[in-house]
Amino acid sequence: MAHPVLINGEWSASTGASTFQAANPATEEVLPGEFPVSDWSEIDRALEAAAEASRQMRGWPGSRFADFLEAYADEIEARADELVAAANAETALPVSPRLKDGELPRTTNQLRQAAAAARADSWRAPTIDTATGIRAMLGPIGPVVVFGPNNFPFAFNGIAGGDFAAAIAAGNPVIAKGHSCHPETTRLFGEAAVAAIQKTGMPAALVQLIYRTSHEDGYKLVSDSRVGACGYTGARHTGLKLKAAADAAGKPFYAELSSINPVYVLAGALAERSDEIADQFTGSCLMGTGQFCTNPGLVVVPAGEAGEAFASAAGTKFGAAPVGTMLSEGVRGSFSSGVDTLKGAGASLVAGGESGGGNGVSFNNTLLTVSGSRFLEDPEVFQTEAFGNGSLIVFADSVDQMAAIAESLEGNLTGCIYSDSNGADDEDYNVVEPALRTKVGRLLNDKMPTGVAVSPAMNHGGPYPATAHPGFTAVGMPGGIPRFAMLQCYDAVRPGRLPAVLQDENPGGVWRNIDGSWTTANVGE
Amino acid sequence: MAHPVLINGEWSASTGASTFQAANPATEEVLPGEFPVSDWSEIDRALEAAAEASRQMRGWPGSRFADFLEAYADEIEARADELVAAANAETALPVSPRLKDGELPRTTNQLRQAAAAARADSWRAPTIDTATGIRAMLGPIGPVVVFGPNNFPFAFNGIAGGDFAAAIAAGNPVIAKGHSCHPETTRLFGEAAVAAIQKTGMPAALVQLIYRTSHEDGYKLVSDSRVGACGYTGARHTGLKLKAAADAAGKPFYAELSSINPVYVLAGALAERSDEIADQFTGSCLMGTGQFCTNPGLVVVPAGEAGEAFASAAGTKFGAAPVGTMLSEGVRGSFSSGVDTLKGAGASLVAGGESGGGNGVSFNNTLLTVSGSRFLEDPEVFQTEAFGNGSLIVFADSVDQMAAIAESLEGNLTGCIYSDSNGADDEDYNVVEPALRTKVGRLLNDKMPTGVAVSPAMNHGGPYPATAHPGFTAVGMPGGIPRFAMLQCYDAVRPGRLPAVLQDENPGGVWRNIDGSWTTANVGE
Repeated sequence: MAHPVLINGEWSASTGASTFQAANPATEEVLPGEFPVSDWSEIDRALEAAAEASRQMRGWPGSRFADFLEAYADEIEARADELVAAANAETALPVSPRLKDGELPRTTNQLRQAAAAARADSWRAPTIDTATGIRAMLGPIGPVVVFGPNNFPFAFNGIAGGDFAAAIAAGNPVIAKGHSCHPETTRLFGEAAVAAIQKTGMPAALVQLIYRTSHEDGYKLVSDSRVGACGYTGARHTGLKLKAAADAAGKPFYAELSSINPVYVLAGALAERSDEIADQFTGSCLMGTGQFCTNPGLVVVPAGEAGEAFASAAGTKFGAAPVGTMLSEGVRGSFSSGVDTLKGAGASLVAGGESGGGNGVSFNNTLLTVSGSRFLEDPEVFQTEAFGNGSLIVFADSVDQMAAIAESLEGNLTGCIYSDSNGADDEDYNVVEPALRTKVGRLLNDKMPTGVAVSPAMNHGGPYPATAHPGFTAVGMPGGIPRFAMLQCYDAVRPGRLPAVLQDENPGGVWRNIDGSWTTANVGE
Repeated sequence: MAHPVLINGEWSASTGASTFQAANPATEEVLPGEFPVSDWSEIDRALEAAAEASRQMRGWPGSRFADFLEAYADEIEARADELVAAANAETALPVSPRLKDGELPRTTNQLRQAAAAARADSWRAPTIDTATGIRAMLGPIGPVVVFGPNNFPFAFNGIAGGDFAAAIAAGNPVIAKGHSCHPETTRLFGEAAVAAIQKTGMPAALVQLIYRTSHEDGYKLVSDSRVGACGYTGARHTGLKLKAAADAAGKPFYAELSSINPVYVLAGALAERSDEIADQFTGSCLMGTGQFCTNPGLVVVPAGEAGEAFASAAGTKFGAAPVGTMLSEGVRGSFSSGVDTLKGAGASLVAGGESGGGNGVSFNNTLLTVSGSRFLEDPEVFQTEAFGNGSLIVFADSVDQMAAIAESLEGNLTGCIYSDSNGADDEDYNVVEPALRTKVGRLLNDKMPTGVAVSPAMNHGGPYPATAHPGFTAVGMPGGIPRFAMLQCYDAVRPGRLPAVLQDENPGGVWRNIDGSWTTANVGE
């Protein structure tokens, strides 16, 4: 008997014809729970209920959404042990520190930051032009569909992660599509969400949950006229198909699709602290078995003795490090095929290259190298994302070649430059940085890209294909919220009819832009 | 001999195989200038030059772009007579007040507002999180292709209008694609732009100009890897094809596609000032021969005597008003076919309905009516945009039907509600407004939608298909600028390497968000 889906506040038996089960990647055993593949009729019911909830919540103050998000964070904490156990069984990610002490607190912290942003209302960027009487702000966009990825069962889960929190904070209902790798974890979040909805008197359809759809129904879902926008984090090929469907219907589709996160190590840095950087690189690349969106998958170093010594030292560290368990057989298969593509194109193996080496689903920590000139002959192939515990080191003949490699890159979430501490690399930095800057959402100095702070200044985003729009971040509050909003302008609207944050009086002390200046004062003060 | 195209600062003979000529819609005579249809080789040269200019300008301060925009506004003013004469011949829009006293000053004002925004740097929304050391701002997105529409030869021209000004203010080069209806006007802007580029020492490829491409080359252009984003204002079918090409390549494509701009007149307003509103409606609908993006194309009034009297009075005014000249035979054809579609679906003619009535290319001022129940049986057909001097009045049986009509609408740029001045309509307003609010970018009270102020609080935008993204405005500074920007985050980047607006010191007094508060102070003050 398959688990029910969560539609309009009810756990209802799915009308879908088929089911699926997740597997424990550490033991390679199929897990007991059966989960439904929803058919269109129940997706349609979810859409109808979401549209109705959206209508019902029009004009509601941010505090109502904040109350829900905070109650939800509390409910999640009350179910922490269950959630951690389920996620550990479904993903093989370690209970501690990863799930219990890292990702779960990150998730509830993110929900609470979204609540604070919803309460403060400043994400609405209220703008008042007293000369013309025109006023504008951001308002909710309508029902949001969120697709979570496999690699963060909590912090990016479609029903609990950053996209979810941002969509709710903007005042929208969410239809969450759980990831097939961790349905039980997702189901537990659904129970917590229902409890929080009831405690805070929110519409039953504020949060709905389905586990899987056919491809065709997925395309119908994201392009449905009742949808406001979508958030997607996951595989590029699947995301691009959904994006095409949403694009054709004019629906904003925020997607995080792929990134190899180039790291540049300049000559002075290598001379100064090669081993320290190799340690940082190894730690960053193998953490979570390399299954991070910001995993350093491409490292550019100067060709020659120092660069080769760096690669060789890193290779030794890769070989000596424990081999983690991957999230699924699918992840191992993609990683293996990515490594084969790089090898086939001429990259040389320094470490790993074979399946196995760890518990259950695993692949040996893998490091490859290639020359800068060979990379530039075929930059597209050498940017193949091998999502997992592996990376490619490129030996660049010159700093100009380093810059040329940056110019040849697709869009990425991050780009790092390591330079020496005494200014010897500054000239090279000034050659590489301008090229790299335009290709990445977040530029780092002397630091690996993993570890994405939930900061108001964070950009977890970047040019296509890292994401589907280079103007927005998926992590950080209130930065992530405007993705799920529309711009609403009021022209000559009578004062009493304006939304609270656009009225003359500003009792909540909302940050507003009045005649070009930001202030928390009333209009005219 | 065809006019040359403007590539990389040179007026070069086009290598395209064919040419076209514009026509004077008032005389229906073909105008003398021959303009080229560019082939891919010259589009490719423009893209290469734009990409190089983009590289060259990386990190340039906003003041350099401001200097150019201001010099360009000066050059345009110096050529005002020529520009007005050319635009009048190509569009039949009146010299005065429209072109000389309205649209040209609006255009130079818009360029100067963009300059002021570029100089102030506040559009970058610099965000500083001192706890994590992470800082972020908006930066240029790369070469922007701008397609201007037929109806504003100055203020929305691809080489001089709002999209152009915003793209330059953000620090990007522009490839302008002139509209085929007014190539000579566009060419004159090109001359002014070259002069301003030379005076301010900007890269020769900051502004480039082509007049027309094949459809296939258009799709190649908007999806080229060297392009950062596109701005498009024009016909929906053409825009959607270009958008599909850009979407598939992951390029933001900001488009203004179509809008019928619903106007609601509630019962009390009709009782209070029916004739005054009919006058305003007639004036707004027939101004510029109705060829405005915000033309009121749909008016919803209560069924019954008062609504019918309003329609009849408006019909009389439509019949009595002079019939203007349309922009082109193409516009007349589309308008005529839109009117036929509405009539075929059951709308009744109150005024007009036939070609002619004015100088040259013209169509009689046309007013139609339909019942609310008939509208709701076929809302898609009754939302057919008839771009020109016509409108459709809907007689709604009840205020709930008024709201249902709003719920059935596609996205629009604007929505208006007229209500009485003594509160008798307030209850009805509260039924109609929530439904209308989510469908439109700009909501108005007691005022027709034409007349789009260049205000920082303006939203000239709206949900699809009014535009391709509901979060952005195409009119207003600095609001329009972020469309042509990417979010650039700096994580642990050494202080001296940060862009000026993200450094601790803030000598320019830029508005920045530091730890959640907006300030013009230095960090730590």
